[in-house]
Amino acid sequence: MSDDAPRYAPDIQAAIDRTRADVARLHGELVRNGLVVWTGGNVSGRVPGADLFVIKPSGVSYDDLAPENMILCDLDGTAIPGAPGSERSPSSDTAAHAYVYRHMPEVGGVVHTHSTFAVAWAARGEEIPCVITAMADEFGGPIPIGPFAIIGDDSIGRGIVETLSGHRSRAVLMQNHGPFTIGVDAKDAVKAAVMVEDVARTVHYAREAGPVIPLPQEAIDRLFDRYQNVYGQSADARR
Amino acid sequence: MSDDAPRYAPDIQAAIDRTRADVARLHGELVRNGLVVWTGGNVSGRVPGADLFVIKPSGVSYDDLAPENMILCDLDGTAIPGAPGSERSPSSDTAAHAYVYRHMPEVGGVVHTHSTFAVAWAARGEEIPCVITAMADEFGGPIPIGPFAIIGDDSIGRGIVETLSGHRSRAVLMQNHGPFTIGVDAKDAVKAAVMVEDVARTVHYAREAGPVIPLPQEAIDRLFDRYQNVYGQSADARR
Amino acid sequence: MSDDAPRYAPDIQAAIDRTRADVARLHGELVRNGLVVWTGGNVSGRVPGADLFVIKPSGVSYDDLAPENMILCDLDGTAIPGAPGSERSPSSDTAAHAYVYRHMPEVGGVVHTHSTFAVAWAARGEEIPCVITAMADEFGGPIPIGPFAIIGDDSIGRGIVETLSGHRSRAVLMQNHGPFTIGVDAKDAVKAAVMVEDVARTVHYAREAGPVIPLPQEAIDRLFDRYQNVYGQSADARR
Amino acid sequence: MSDDAPRYAPDIQAAIDRTRADVARLHGELVRNGLVVWTGGNVSGRVPGADLFVIKPSGVSYDDLAPENMILCDLDGTAIPGAPGSERSPSSDTAAHAYVYRHMPEVGGVVHTHSTFAVAWAARGEEIPCVITAMADEFGGPIPIGPFAIIGDDSIGRGIVETLSGHRSRAVLMQNHGPFTIGVDAKDAVKAAVMVEDVARTVHYAREAGPVIPLPQEAIDRLFDRYQNVYGQSADARR
Repeated sequence: MSDDAPRYAPDIQAAIDRTRADVARLHGELVRNGLVVWTGGNVSGRVPGADLFVIKPSGVSYDDLAPENMILCDLDGTAIPGAPGSERSPSSDTAAHAYVYRHMPEVGGVVHTHSTFAVAWAARGEEIPCVITAMADEFGGPIPIGPFAIIGDDSIGRGIVETLSGHRSRAVLMQNHGPFTIGVDAKDAVKAAVMVEDVARTVHYAREAGPVIPLPQEAIDRLFDRYQNVYGQSADARR
Repeated sequence: MSDDAPRYAPDIQAAIDRTRADVARLHGELVRNGLVVWTGGNVSGRVPGADLFVIKPSGVSYDDLAPENMILCDLDGTAIPGAPGSERSPSSDTAAHAYVYRHMPEVGGVVHTHSTFAVAWAARGEEIPCVITAMADEFGGPIPIGPFAIIGDDSIGRGIVETLSGHRSRAVLMQNHGPFTIGVDAKDAVKAAVMVEDVARTVHYAREAGPVIPLPQEAIDRLFDRYQNVYGQSADARR
Repeated sequence: MSDDAPRYAPDIQAAIDRTRADVARLHGELVRNGLVVWTGGNVSGRVPGADLFVIKPSGVSYDDLAPENMILCDLDGTAIPGAPGSERSPSSDTAAHAYVYRHMPEVGGVVHTHSTFAVAWAARGEEIPCVITAMADEFGGPIPIGPFAIIGDDSIGRGIVETLSGHRSRAVLMQNHGPFTIGVDAKDAVKAAVMVEDVARTVHYAREAGPVIPLPQEAIDRLFDRYQNVYGQSADARR
Repeated sequence: MSDDAPRYAPDIQAAIDRTRADVARLHGELVRNGLVVWTGGNVSGRVPGADLFVIKPSGVSYDDLAPENMILCDLDGTAIPGAPGSERSPSSDTAAHAYVYRHMPEVGGVVHTHSTFAVAWAARGEEIPCVITAMADEFGGPIPIGPFAIIGDDSIGRGIVETLSGHRSRAVLMQNHGPFTIGVDAKDAVKAAVMVEDVARTVHYAREAGPVIPLPQEAIDRLFDRYQNVYGQSADARR
């Protein structure tokens, strides 16, 4: 660590360290679940109790994703000078992650991938209809399409926030681009990224062979409500 | 093990221990065969000689599936207090498994997954026609569709039992939900889960490119009969 | 080895041992290339210099495929009593392998799988057209369909032999059943099984999105001729 | 090394050794990314500072790809006599690689595969339209089709060079054959091979389910320009 490394209170430093470890490890889940190729895809996690988040460096191999290589950023998406990893550039999607953290205080994690079937729906600008119970559980309805926006300003972040604010879904398919997912923490956002590809693939194949049977709205509501409140080992099980 | 841990006769305890080990290990087969993502999917096994079965805890990672974390339940699906693993909640599908064990005494194992192609047929409510010899061997005819039913009461368990009772198939596709399979033991039910996804995928691709040739009923009958009686190393080889 | 174990001349015994090792190891290639699930699929190899071949036991897990578990058979498909592995039953497809060895003396290996895309073409009874150069290299033309035949007599073996005799292709898709491949040895037949699934999948996707461009017959002939004679490290490189 | 092994200046020898190691290792990326089966596919790399390149031997298993087995060739595609590996024949595609190195001095790496979806587009002779932002980033527009050409003379190499000269894309789909990719070095060409299969697959699925939304040319231009100049850790990050 360089001489100008920032000093944080011990509890904040511990939270930073935990977030670095989580974010580094969770990139492995993107690979294990077949969501990314080469250096594509990125996971970030908000540091609990601080206006900071941790994200992957740009264009770096998945084999090099050690906790100390992750990049600590402020909520404007600027790398904190002197912190471990700061000699590298953060992911080129950092501005979009930062926008989400600034405008959605309840969000603790953000994930972006170019997973095959989610991108296929995005290329058509077509939302994924909610026709299987696992999708009702997890997303509470269709997966919405976000606006077409390209890198370089706030438009991707704004499109994510506008689409997901007040929506049950933790996933948005940005048109012609791909999925962004949010969660209570980085692990929850990774789970959403895994599940959105799973439902994108399943519903693709389902529709390809004939008409699908709609799920009644009342059933969707009951499934979503139950899953948010009951499933797993405790109230925070979705994480 | 806590003080209020139940005491069983040595042979029953040995059967419980073997079932815990089998059920824990067989979840690995779901992963290895690409049938599940994240914490989805569950395997259970009846304890031979007792009114008990063993099932996976709810919402727990596939890396944490040690035998001692499996949950021992009575045939109402209630975790046995004090038994190893009982500090966790059993799978949210436990009620459906329990219903099957109560109403189909010949069943020794139950599996549920959201495997891609099986769910795709389920989303259309369309049974899988028997057009390949491997499917005649294993299932003796088409894979049937079960009713639409959602979690919260006996309706899933009842739908499974009503569809599979007297049917050759060990697999049912619950409409808009996914496959449940049964077997003489947990391994046999896992094999059925692997094979139902395999035939769901193969027949999907077959039909996608043009009409398939039906199998004569007489050939289906001969193949099914032979496979149940001859195949493998002994009469119980299907396990 | 039991007391009634057969005695062979040392060179034959050495050839048996090598064939056992090859056949055991090559089953791993079926798994690695995604051609089989559960215990499906089988590889056999003729013992050079003897009227014998080695095949996998029936219904046995891919984790148990050690050389000493492989079964030594005569050309009628009967396990040699007392030889290692003979306490088990040979693969239920042994009669078909034996028929091929009896009627095609140039064949040194046979493979059968239920690989997804090859079975999909078989379920439609549709030969795979030769529209990619890799397929011209390897098979010299279309992959033919064999007759519908079910297990229990010589009809599968006869269908394979009648379809492949005098044909360039080392693979046949038995209608409603799946691919059988032959080769100069077991490895060559496994390569054909890998390649037939590869071309079945590629041509499936190619045609799904629009008309494919036919390959001129003259180009197919030149590619096949060159590949049989030049490719690889020596005249027997295809093995 | 044999007595007639060539002698190079130490810096050239070091560059040869590094290129051998890179080319050997990068073949593993073809396997890891599911681009090749059996012995198919080949990677080559130009030796910086010399009229030499390194390529894989013909028909050799991916398990045998040690650096010393790679073959050193001059720019006519002739193996350098006496160099390590020269007892084997170079890949049957060596002439095409050599042609590219002779005619495109800026190219430092060439890759050829038969990856499924890229070959599927090639079999229809249909370029892949640029409808997703990741494709604009990486290729700057559609992936073009090259002419039908078969092995045996310069026609494959000439087709690659004529199609890619002055084109933004580093990938060409040779009609009825498959993808060839180029790059500033072997790693860059492998990345292009991975990405071309990724976009071939994604756009296949996207179009299969309905019309895709075109990307505005202005957006493609901005994305391509930014990615070439900004992305990654430095100006040469694309490598």
